[in-house]
Amino acid sequence: MSKVKVASPEAATSRADTVQALVNGSMRFHEVPAEIPAADATSIRREAVAKITGTALDAIAHFSFDAGTAATRHCENLIGVAQIPMGIVGPITVHGDTIDGDVLVPMATTEGALLASINRGCAAIRLVGGATVYVEDVGMTRAPVFRARSQREARAFLKWIAEHEPQIREVAEGTSRFLKMTGLRPYIFGTTIFLRFRFTTGDAMGMNMATIACDRVVRGLIEPKTGIPCVALSGNYCVDKKAAQVNFSEGRGKRVHAEVVLDAAILRDVLKTDSRSLVEVQYRKNLLGSIAAGAMGYNAHYANVLSAFFIATGQDPAHVVGGSTGVTCIEPRENGAVYASIFLPDLPLGAIGGGTALGTQSEALRILGVVPDADHPGQAAMRLAEILGAAVLAGELSLMAAFTSSDLARAHQRLGRGAQEGDKGV
Amino acid sequence: MSKVKVASPEAATSRADTVQALVNGSMRFHEVPAEIPAADATSIRREAVAKITGTALDAIAHFSFDAGTAATRHCENLIGVAQIPMGIVGPITVHGDTIDGDVLVPMATTEGALLASINRGCAAIRLVGGATVYVEDVGMTRAPVFRARSQREARAFLKWIAEHEPQIREVAEGTSRFLKMTGLRPYIFGTTIFLRFRFTTGDAMGMNMATIACDRVVRGLIEPKTGIPCVALSGNYCVDKKAAQVNFSEGRGKRVHAEVVLDAAILRDVLKTDSRSLVEVQYRKNLLGSIAAGAMGYNAHYANVLSAFFIATGQDPAHVVGGSTGVTCIEPRENGAVYASIFLPDLPLGAIGGGTALGTQSEALRILGVVPDADHPGQAAMRLAEILGAAVLAGELSLMAAFTSSDLARAHQRLGRGAQEGDKGV
Amino acid sequence: MSKVKVASPEAATSRADTVQALVNGSMRFHEVPAEIPAADATSIRREAVAKITGTALDAIAHFSFDAGTAATRHCENLIGVAQIPMGIVGPITVHGDTIDGDVLVPMATTEGALLASINRGCAAIRLVGGATVYVEDVGMTRAPVFRARSQREARAFLKWIAEHEPQIREVAEGTSRFLKMTGLRPYIFGTTIFLRFRFTTGDAMGMNMATIACDRVVRGLIEPKTGIPCVALSGNYCVDKKAAQVNFSEGRGKRVHAEVVLDAAILRDVLKTDSRSLVEVQYRKNLLGSIAAGAMGYNAHYANVLSAFFIATGQDPAHVVGGSTGVTCIEPRENGAVYASIFLPDLPLGAIGGGTALGTQSEALRILGVVPDADHPGQAAMRLAEILGAAVLAGELSLMAAFTSSDLARAHQRLGRGAQEGDKGV
Amino acid sequence: MSKVKVASPEAATSRADTVQALVNGSMRFHEVPAEIPAADATSIRREAVAKITGTALDAIAHFSFDAGTAATRHCENLIGVAQIPMGIVGPITVHGDTIDGDVLVPMATTEGALLASINRGCAAIRLVGGATVYVEDVGMTRAPVFRARSQREARAFLKWIAEHEPQIREVAEGTSRFLKMTGLRPYIFGTTIFLRFRFTTGDAMGMNMATIACDRVVRGLIEPKTGIPCVALSGNYCVDKKAAQVNFSEGRGKRVHAEVVLDAAILRDVLKTDSRSLVEVQYRKNLLGSIAAGAMGYNAHYANVLSAFFIATGQDPAHVVGGSTGVTCIEPRENGAVYASIFLPDLPLGAIGGGTALGTQSEALRILGVVPDADHPGQAAMRLAEILGAAVLAGELSLMAAFTSSDLARAHQRLGRGAQEGDKGV
Repeated sequence: MSKVKVASPEAATSRADTVQALVNGSMRFHEVPAEIPAADATSIRREAVAKITGTALDAIAHFSFDAGTAATRHCENLIGVAQIPMGIVGPITVHGDTIDGDVLVPMATTEGALLASINRGCAAIRLVGGATVYVEDVGMTRAPVFRARSQREARAFLKWIAEHEPQIREVAEGTSRFLKMTGLRPYIFGTTIFLRFRFTTGDAMGMNMATIACDRVVRGLIEPKTGIPCVALSGNYCVDKKAAQVNFSEGRGKRVHAEVVLDAAILRDVLKTDSRSLVEVQYRKNLLGSIAAGAMGYNAHYANVLSAFFIATGQDPAHVVGGSTGVTCIEPRENGAVYASIFLPDLPLGAIGGGTALGTQSEALRILGVVPDADHPGQAAMRLAEILGAAVLAGELSLMAAFTSSDLARAHQRLGRGAQEGDKGV
Repeated sequence: MSKVKVASPEAATSRADTVQALVNGSMRFHEVPAEIPAADATSIRREAVAKITGTALDAIAHFSFDAGTAATRHCENLIGVAQIPMGIVGPITVHGDTIDGDVLVPMATTEGALLASINRGCAAIRLVGGATVYVEDVGMTRAPVFRARSQREARAFLKWIAEHEPQIREVAEGTSRFLKMTGLRPYIFGTTIFLRFRFTTGDAMGMNMATIACDRVVRGLIEPKTGIPCVALSGNYCVDKKAAQVNFSEGRGKRVHAEVVLDAAILRDVLKTDSRSLVEVQYRKNLLGSIAAGAMGYNAHYANVLSAFFIATGQDPAHVVGGSTGVTCIEPRENGAVYASIFLPDLPLGAIGGGTALGTQSEALRILGVVPDADHPGQAAMRLAEILGAAVLAGELSLMAAFTSSDLARAHQRLGRGAQEGDKGV
Repeated sequence: MSKVKVASPEAATSRADTVQALVNGSMRFHEVPAEIPAADATSIRREAVAKITGTALDAIAHFSFDAGTAATRHCENLIGVAQIPMGIVGPITVHGDTIDGDVLVPMATTEGALLASINRGCAAIRLVGGATVYVEDVGMTRAPVFRARSQREARAFLKWIAEHEPQIREVAEGTSRFLKMTGLRPYIFGTTIFLRFRFTTGDAMGMNMATIACDRVVRGLIEPKTGIPCVALSGNYCVDKKAAQVNFSEGRGKRVHAEVVLDAAILRDVLKTDSRSLVEVQYRKNLLGSIAAGAMGYNAHYANVLSAFFIATGQDPAHVVGGSTGVTCIEPRENGAVYASIFLPDLPLGAIGGGTALGTQSEALRILGVVPDADHPGQAAMRLAEILGAAVLAGELSLMAAFTSSDLARAHQRLGRGAQEGDKGV
Repeated sequence: MSKVKVASPEAATSRADTVQALVNGSMRFHEVPAEIPAADATSIRREAVAKITGTALDAIAHFSFDAGTAATRHCENLIGVAQIPMGIVGPITVHGDTIDGDVLVPMATTEGALLASINRGCAAIRLVGGATVYVEDVGMTRAPVFRARSQREARAFLKWIAEHEPQIREVAEGTSRFLKMTGLRPYIFGTTIFLRFRFTTGDAMGMNMATIACDRVVRGLIEPKTGIPCVALSGNYCVDKKAAQVNFSEGRGKRVHAEVVLDAAILRDVLKTDSRSLVEVQYRKNLLGSIAAGAMGYNAHYANVLSAFFIATGQDPAHVVGGSTGVTCIEPRENGAVYASIFLPDLPLGAIGGGTALGTQSEALRILGVVPDADHPGQAAMRLAEILGAAVLAGELSLMAAFTSSDLARAHQRLGRGAQEGDKGV
């Protein structure tokens, strides 16, 4: 809670002085003394910001998480909260390895109509018996970049790396009992060497674990033994929070597939569309449109669903960038049905760490039944990914159908306008 | 506030029945009767979710926005809130068209260390006198996709479009006094035609305004007059929320440049780095690493800064996807200084609409001095973009410096280890 | 002809000495004295190469072009010829602006089966009445790159450019009466400025004309007047001989569309396929396969057809790189027919210049009826592009059909194998 | 030789009739009777083309290869030859696994100035002691595409593939004693499955060997045993003759690195440049320019060097498309020197097969000392790749230097103009 208890006149004085110091710039916001309790420090900073900017900050003050934890683990220079409205969609029926049934899905967004749309997709999927989801834990990657003086030196370095992979693994895996090194692939040209490490990290999204493991391996083993300097612990061949072919091709975090077959009646009654129209939107928009645009993402709006889900469940919202680079498929089936699938090749996700421990996010995860179990590390994160996969499929179906039904409506209008109208056409 | 006032026994009965109907599935979450006040409906849904999932949802209940507005404009099936910790960075000194001085920047994140890092970059920029920012309002784009039967038909269609551009503009601009049509570019191959419309939209991010304008133009003018059907109002050649070359090349929303020159003393004392190291991280990570990865984004972590800024200020967080596809440059200057710049070619942003009217977001915008003025539409959004540009530059500098200083530290260690260590090297 | 006439003992002595000097390295191959006639110099170099490498070079000696012209305009250090077998495909029926009828197409290749395949596609197109081709002369581009010290300086530079576009055009167009400047678009970030010039260049491919025009403009006008240095006359934003989104999006050289509708009988009898199979190959190979590969080229084998056509007709074969980055479409039509189209967004082509004046290439152009007419500059190059567009379409249809007919054959085999076989299946 | 001996009046009559049949269209060009000797058939077709088009085809008639072999293995519907001028560059000094010394390099082109430029780069490299080249035989790839009905079916298929990899390898390797299967990687989304096979193929480029092996495996093993149909033997995830990230990342054919350090004197005296200028061209053109263009190729003109080398040595010129997608690096070294490297990730090359057996091409390979040795398969192709790597490096250095020296010249001019000129500058 954000209430500030003022115990004594001295404290009050001190508080006013601190606010004043922030206001006049003699103290920086990160210099608020550590001995001031976090909740107090938060309100002091907020009061200073309010004074400096002449703005009342009542809403920002309105939060229920513990300021101390938040200021330490989540957000330095804490002044309060951003409130994002949270709603519920579903139930959606999901068939996966960790879930086989219905689930309600919390989503947080400020963009009206999004949840209503996803909800309609959930209904369609539920009414045909559910979506099938496959998730692979391909692992979190991190790629330090090194500098050699020549190809000769680079090749000697790579030879050393190949010969010492067991030691490298041992050092890496010594940093966490949940981290397993599952790959180490070099990429070089000129004098630049990338070592792309891959780790599974249990229920954690794993970026921090991967970075710590790489740091230990690089500082403690590779640099001292080879003399080849690491220029940056992240060499952008990882690659984090960028739409990238290397992640599209090899996967990162979780790789998710979800699919469903929708019959003609559901298409007509729930999604207000039909097979032919949906297949055409897929073809001209998701395939040809993205090709024309040079877009890395052959889908309608993965990013919207991911954002709302990530914010609700305490994921890193910047991971929506790589997370949304996948391919939707819609194919005609017999009797006016369609097959629909989504594919998320690069989905970093966690059931612990990041924002998952904050109050609202933790509750959202419990709504999803996502509860880490130390005896089965990784299962909670898999469940999270399976549910998200189904939700993304629901979002695609509903938005794509929306395009076609407006189309249908207009087609009907045109049909009624008679022949003379056509004369003006091309 | 989320308090629910229960006026009478009948209401109480009704409430329990509604909850029960949601729990047993006889009522769907979007079917909660419209006559129930929004705050009540929100708590009813939340209570049902809690019962269904066996989860207490106290934190989610803790919000201060108006449920009615939130449920109508921002988030259907509202159950409460996702709380994202908000902190403050800066002041950062910004020189632009709409701002020339210091500003404090609110950011909301769950990822620890991010604000501390950006804050350090702000200090460096402030200490050298500020960052210069240039923002172009290149406008929001929307590209409906049409289907022809042949190139002949497609070309007749394009001829019609070219000849009727004044009428198209008139219809489009009739949908909002803030919307101006600034471009209309076709792209065709085979039987598929994209019309890429471009609009300036005042202080709004403009995606909805652009969609409404396109809908009116397509339904009211183009389809009836040409007979060529529109397959989808968004043909992914827009392209929204995807990393895409067409946006990288032509711009979308705001196009932002920010730059600063940092002298050797600031590099050393504030960023704990030096010119040579920073230039090398730029070269091997941001350029060669992203090239190796096939990444559309030649930067360190634009996505992190954008996410935190977008969530705090009520932007659409899914726009981080396209928003983060830019290029950082770091170049050596005389006497150990560096020139640093960032470039955001595809930044949709708004000072009104979306989540900007919500309580915490609205306060965050006022902290930034972003206050729309109907007499000068567009100025508030420009200010927002200018501040963000400087903040992104601060974020890049600080993270890139962090890589190098760990490097420097290790270099010092190595220097101290003496000659015999080198013998083991490659 | 390559015969060397030896006029006198002195010449013979001199010749032997020159060969010996090349063999022992005291003379470099480009140092053969200019006063030696080109044919002699060619045979002298060839003899020296033969001696140095112990290789008889009889075939390389066998050419019919004029050595003097070849050595001066086409290939320094001339030793002879590479002979590429040339064959003929067609006739193919082409409906365009400059051609409306049948044409035989010469192609040069060393890759067996290519011409037979294209020839089958030509037959299919001819039998349904021909392909319709549309060519736009979008023009040749060249983009010098400049260095500014700051965005301020860069923006002042761009302002100067915008204000002086008439003068720039005048200088550019003063370099050739066939060159028209049709565009000048800047692109900047950080301190780097690209000016992307666009020119139409009559019947020439135009790269050299564009370079000369840019050189004159940059050296004579832009650099002296602005003081902003040009770092390279080609800044790779042109971009030449690379698969690139900027060319895909904006076009370069000629932009070509060709299309045809094939009925079920032709599909069956000539191409040994059917509509459903061809549409599926298009979907899974040309669209999904190229998406999966991150390939800039959504087609089966444009590069093969372009290479064979370019070599036969004296085009620059390195232009196949950008030339092959287009999109094939195959769509089902009524009664088992298909609509098929090809799209070449970036096709540099010329009817004069480059290798077009060489004997065999000149003859190949005459086979095509491509004869530049000074009174109608550009028409010959348009005709060349129209024919190539149709040939590329023929190549796509035939190869894609080949995939499906082998598929059909196997399907038939499977059908005959009986039920027990299926039991082993997945 | 292309001379046609006419033995008897009957033959003469027959010949005239055949020509006439071709001319009037009653016989197609591929229907010339097989019993007519190839040389005769070639001249008959050529005569018919000449008559139809009213064109004398004397140059096209002028070739020295055997018409029978050419018509059978290289080019159907043979009418003669395309003559491409061939010249010589070098010697260039190459240090690799298969070559350690000087080599002369034949190149065939119609584009003037190319050989002169490469030749200058060869001189620079030779004068500093040579280029070091590393070549990896990463192997030829081919990726058939299959259709499943569902992810479940697709996963069962992949399980079968994984379990039967030994049998698959056995079948594949049974098609040629030179073919080794070195990889089999699936990629799936939706109902589409790609199996990306990788093979080493001795001295052959290997595309045909790979296709035959895949055909045998698919027809003989995978389809009958799994029941999953192959839609196309090439699913564009191979990917052949397209610029593609999957090849850039994983390599295809040969992966080639070449490097050299050039001191200040060589830069100045041979290349007319200096370290600072060359590094800047690399930065603004090859890196930033290609990034701006969305170009897959961070180099100056690999495509030119590859084209000329490929045509001279009988390679498939369409392979220049993928072959030219690499990265050049230029980095400053001490005392005004530079380090320069090239990287070719996707270079299909062969010393046998394709056009290598044709007369002029075979002689060109012998000039290079590329002579396949059945006891050491693969060595000749490696030598070919090593030489090409060095030549590409020479081409980059020379062209990039050319940009800078024109720059230097102008800089000198500017320096002489005095101060008043600067006043007019930006």
